[in-house]
Amino acid sequence: MKTARVAFAGALHEAQPHDAGLRLADGRVLRENEVVWLPPFEPGTIVALGLNYADHVKELSKELTIGEKDEPLVFLKTPGSTIGHRGAVRRPAGVRFLHYECELAVVIGATAHRVKRADALRHVAGYTVCNDYAVRDYLENWYRPNLRAKNRDGGTVLGPWLVDAADVPDPQALALRTIVNGVVVQSGTTANMIRDVAWLIEYLSAFMTLQAGDVILTGTPEGVTNVNVGDEVVCEIDGIGRLSSTIVGDEAYGIGEQHECASNT
Amino acid sequence: MKTARVAFAGALHEAQPHDAGLRLADGRVLRENEVVWLPPFEPGTIVALGLNYADHVKELSKELTIGEKDEPLVFLKTPGSTIGHRGAVRRPAGVRFLHYECELAVVIGATAHRVKRADALRHVAGYTVCNDYAVRDYLENWYRPNLRAKNRDGGTVLGPWLVDAADVPDPQALALRTIVNGVVVQSGTTANMIRDVAWLIEYLSAFMTLQAGDVILTGTPEGVTNVNVGDEVVCEIDGIGRLSSTIVGDEAYGIGEQHECASNT
Repeated sequence: MKTARVAFAGALHEAQPHDAGLRLADGRVLRENEVVWLPPFEPGTIVALGLNYADHVKELSKELTIGEKDEPLVFLKTPGSTIGHRGAVRRPAGVRFLHYECELAVVIGATAHRVKRADALRHVAGYTVCNDYAVRDYLENWYRPNLRAKNRDGGTVLGPWLVDAADVPDPQALALRTIVNGVVVQSGTTANMIRDVAWLIEYLSAFMTLQAGDVILTGTPEGVTNVNVGDEVVCEIDGIGRLSSTIVGDEAYGIGEQHECASNT
Repeated sequence: MKTARVAFAGALHEAQPHDAGLRLADGRVLRENEVVWLPPFEPGTIVALGLNYADHVKELSKELTIGEKDEPLVFLKTPGSTIGHRGAVRRPAGVRFLHYECELAVVIGATAHRVKRADALRHVAGYTVCNDYAVRDYLENWYRPNLRAKNRDGGTVLGPWLVDAADVPDPQALALRTIVNGVVVQSGTTANMIRDVAWLIEYLSAFMTLQAGDVILTGTPEGVTNVNVGDEVVCEIDGIGRLSSTIVGDEAYGIGEQHECASNT
């Protein structure tokens, strides 16, 4: 089963896919562009992986290595940074690199504390697509995905659908890709994760209890490039969904020439 | 005004200080040890500063510098890691360094987006004390406060009281200290922050909207040392509160000899 959360005609609704677009729980059938899509669940704690695909590590830096013996690069994102399908992502004036990152998002369904790898997937409610945007300019240190790079308003796009775990027999065998203005720019498979979903749940749940609604963003393969105002960015994972977002400029937010933190220059 | 959230006799209650201990909103007067103290508000996004006191930077590493021109070291903590006054903090068997960190916690009261420093404190609801424990063993890189160091269950102690901003005329003039088993081990003043509260609100709100309930943990002064099972750790900030916690071993959680992530050794 696939479910979404959308806003339509003055209320929030649960929705399911329909040939015409989507069908609200109350039976109304709508086109995709008639509703406002929210993240398909209320996100709790969002754990994100950096450098979890070997090819992506290589593309970022020749000096960088993340091996199976290394501590994974894990950081948190605020639920405040999330938006849904067809959302707008602000590209701040003056930055050089706004990178999309297509990622498999794992949504926890049942409290996980000190879970073993073999049992880990039983704690998963389902999967969705994430576009985990980064303003690469603000990354001074590969090991430090600081808040200005990774926790901006609207920088975490999630959706459109939450797909039941039961309908995803193997989360490590999913092709994923990013398409900018109709051109495929990033392509990979979840088979190439350095740490797979079950490993991550074992690792995290050993010291922090994962709760229903918590999310693990599992990292992105190679192929990240800069996107500009006006670009339409689609992240797609086979069997999970096709998530789009559009890049907008500061003007939409009434922001002028002023640097976002004059204090720091 | 000072308020707390406590559990007593089957329900959650708001409480205020009383000569005998505390007074529930319904009038019942209780001793401090008769209730379970929760964090004094429901935490939203928790932003934490590393290396925000020059003396603390110096004590951690001679090579380390954080100047006024550098990007501040900011990271997120999950609300799932928070506990209240008189809570128990687990010291995992086998680690060498469990460090307390006494910090002024700033609680946002009104949505802050692109706020200027001069207006920043108007967005503060109040202040409380935080003991932001770290398992220093897991810090491989000073710029990377990874989740195993800083996002453990029970590792973020908050309380006892949320003190109205109106009652704290100058958040940059507060003496703070940590007392382990009756001995003062850490002592400082918020006057020595590298980035003060107003600066931090301007900086953060430039790219992420802060909401009511969001928290900024402003860093700790020098004097962090290891604590052991059985220790009583009190973090105190003049005019804000006296927050205690106790260090407990794995046994209390039914955890045996097993390493917390065998996969990583």
